[in-house]
Amino acid sequence: MKAVLLAAGEGKRLRPFFSRPKPLVPLLGLALIQRNILALRDCGIKEFIIITGYQAEEIEEYLGTGEKLGVQISYLHNAEWQLGNGVSAYTLRQNHFADEKYILMMADHVFEIDVIKSFLTAAQTLEAGEVLLAADRRLEQVYDLDECTKVKGQDDFALRLGKDLQDYNAVDCGLFIGSQALLDALGKAVSQGRYTLTDGVNLLAESRKVRLFFLEGNWVDVDDLESYKYAEKMLLKSLVPPKDGLISRTFNRPLSLRITKVLAKTAVTPNQITWCSFFVAVLSAICFAVVNPILAGLLTQFASILDGVDGEIARLKFMRSNYGGLLDAILDRYGDFLIIIGMTYAWYTAAADPLALGIGAAALTGIPLSMLFKEKFHALTGKPYIPEIHDGITRYLPANRDGRLFIIFLGGIFNLLPLALAVLAIITHLQAWWRLYNARRII
Amino acid sequence: MKAVLLAAGEGKRLRPFFSRPKPLVPLLGLALIQRNILALRDCGIKEFIIITGYQAEEIEEYLGTGEKLGVQISYLHNAEWQLGNGVSAYTLRQNHFADEKYILMMADHVFEIDVIKSFLTAAQTLEAGEVLLAADRRLEQVYDLDECTKVKGQDDFALRLGKDLQDYNAVDCGLFIGSQALLDALGKAVSQGRYTLTDGVNLLAESRKVRLFFLEGNWVDVDDLESYKYAEKMLLKSLVPPKDGLISRTFNRPLSLRITKVLAKTAVTPNQITWCSFFVAVLSAICFAVVNPILAGLLTQFASILDGVDGEIARLKFMRSNYGGLLDAILDRYGDFLIIIGMTYAWYTAAADPLALGIGAAALTGIPLSMLFKEKFHALTGKPYIPEIHDGITRYLPANRDGRLFIIFLGGIFNLLPLALAVLAIITHLQAWWRLYNARRII
Repeated sequence: MKAVLLAAGEGKRLRPFFSRPKPLVPLLGLALIQRNILALRDCGIKEFIIITGYQAEEIEEYLGTGEKLGVQISYLHNAEWQLGNGVSAYTLRQNHFADEKYILMMADHVFEIDVIKSFLTAAQTLEAGEVLLAADRRLEQVYDLDECTKVKGQDDFALRLGKDLQDYNAVDCGLFIGSQALLDALGKAVSQGRYTLTDGVNLLAESRKVRLFFLEGNWVDVDDLESYKYAEKMLLKSLVPPKDGLISRTFNRPLSLRITKVLAKTAVTPNQITWCSFFVAVLSAICFAVVNPILAGLLTQFASILDGVDGEIARLKFMRSNYGGLLDAILDRYGDFLIIIGMTYAWYTAAADPLALGIGAAALTGIPLSMLFKEKFHALTGKPYIPEIHDGITRYLPANRDGRLFIIFLGGIFNLLPLALAVLAIITHLQAWWRLYNARRII
Repeated sequence: MKAVLLAAGEGKRLRPFFSRPKPLVPLLGLALIQRNILALRDCGIKEFIIITGYQAEEIEEYLGTGEKLGVQISYLHNAEWQLGNGVSAYTLRQNHFADEKYILMMADHVFEIDVIKSFLTAAQTLEAGEVLLAADRRLEQVYDLDECTKVKGQDDFALRLGKDLQDYNAVDCGLFIGSQALLDALGKAVSQGRYTLTDGVNLLAESRKVRLFFLEGNWVDVDDLESYKYAEKMLLKSLVPPKDGLISRTFNRPLSLRITKVLAKTAVTPNQITWCSFFVAVLSAICFAVVNPILAGLLTQFASILDGVDGEIARLKFMRSNYGGLLDAILDRYGDFLIIIGMTYAWYTAAADPLALGIGAAALTGIPLSMLFKEKFHALTGKPYIPEIHDGITRYLPANRDGRLFIIFLGGIFNLLPLALAVLAIITHLQAWWRLYNARRII
């Protein structure tokens, strides 16, 4: 399926704040239109048609052929963009591709990626001659309801759309699956002097050809500074994975998201952050070894927070890679090992207690077991091991990385290294044996 | 697809050696027919029709409804089994299932499982009215060519079959995909007083309806004591995985296969062997700690050999399980950890050299990296990491488990624990960092 992005409008209300045309306004490190292209690319779409109007050259210059983004982009220009977005959409007739379906998206709308994925899945069942429109019926949580195009729907079909509709039960999210039928309707509307996309869609709605897809996730039409800030918040919030551990969710994420918000606007890559988190862990290990446990503990927690940032940037900027996943996994283990060795060294040199060596060895061997188990489970069953679901009662043990590093943090700032090491040794091995026992049931 | 197993014959030549009917003759822990049922079950076949003749009750009593094997078995009895196997196969008409295809197999033929898998794949392209016959054209390596039914083929079709055929280019392996057409041909042959399966197939061959599948793997018709022993050897040899490490292939497998040959005939489960291998590793660790390095080294190598047996038994007796894979992975790591700790303890208590602690910690942290990397790679890419392919030049580093335990074995018997630990520390970390560097290219 091809994607058609409408990027012809002027975006007056954002102009005072940005020197670029609205589709190129940067949001968390990506231009609005670039984010949509990358999101659609992640859904498997490789061919894009961008309809330009206002400041067309700047947009074409910025995106080029799409090669840098790993897609193919061609452009259609609508010199009469000021008439309305229906006229812009209608320029698509110049690049007509028979009755092939296409996804039509406003360049300046921002969606959580899962919304686009499920919309495309729903598109597969669309019948010939129909248009699919993403609509939101959760009116109480729609952002800036006044500005939205309202939809009066019945069953799964739109009856009527309009900005000033009084009787409505959903709003238009600016995301369509169109085909030749939509172009025909737009042509008819334009010939009648009605120039908005809504005008064309209304002609189809009259004959019950506009099927509604009620989305579940978040989206926003970035129109002014408030909606821009809302989009930032929404995207950052969407970065928290559902299987996050307790410490990560309550303690690390609020901080890592702030760091991500800053770093997203730079050219820093996720892998660079992974390395950075590793070096902070090395520093922490050295601080433990030279008996500065408070600083060491703080650095450990900082490494733990940074350990979230690489993934957040990767998801936010569509920079996920298998290599990044591998690098993160191995460097995390090295960081953990070095910190444990630093702590054990500090304890043993201070107290010359052989117990330090025993507990240190137990903690050192316990550390990799969680990942070993999870990855082996994944490789064997093809399904990820999710502690929150599979660990049963032991999911409350802080034996995953966020929890383990938090124990080290506490051990550092309260200068209780023997206790922290003992707790780590016990919970990691306890978790491993419990998982092994439990695996019989869940595998 | 259903499976039809011909188990009606007498098997005279094996009778002096076994007190059971031939399909129930035990081979490496499974009755011949049971092995075929389990192999077909592993290929996704759940419904079986067994055609009995000689000693039918014993066979029915042994296999029952198939519940214990996880399949459904029904029986057809041919009272006139002595006439020939064509008459036996023809009893299938009583359980006629329209034009559905079925796999027809001799109960006493033994195949490597991959042969059956590729045969079933080939069956998918069979056209209506055709029969697919597994044939072997590698005549120089066919076991007991004299006893085989020969096939004269042209292109991919059989022209003529017969035991005494002079002009032939393949042999019949006793594995068919049949349909109603085969039953019709058998009926016609029987009505003409020709009672073998070959007679029926020949009628189809005349009209070019017998398509040939030339198999690649090993198989044998278990008919006498020599072929029985050949089958044992063939199955044991097939247990060696293609991605075996160097030490495993050259040193461990010849020994582990001998142990497997003995244990397969008992009720010992793969998981019990996994535990056994772990306890031997614990013993080895204790021996290292109490300064008996020679015994400790020998025990380590024994644990390494046993580590192959669990998988061999699991594959041989169709007892593979995800839980077994997980148990093996975690207990192996524990075994390794304990052995390294035992060695480090021995070195440190003997020499009071802090270097022992450093090298010990390095070895301890290096040990799990190989598996961590491989499993993460598998989980991320969906493909297994195969050291022989992906490791490039470092595949010669003995840093996988077979190699690591061999180094410990050598360190033990030559009483060179510091050297063995240092080598382990170096190669495991070297491998991990090289893999990480190399991953950019291969992932």
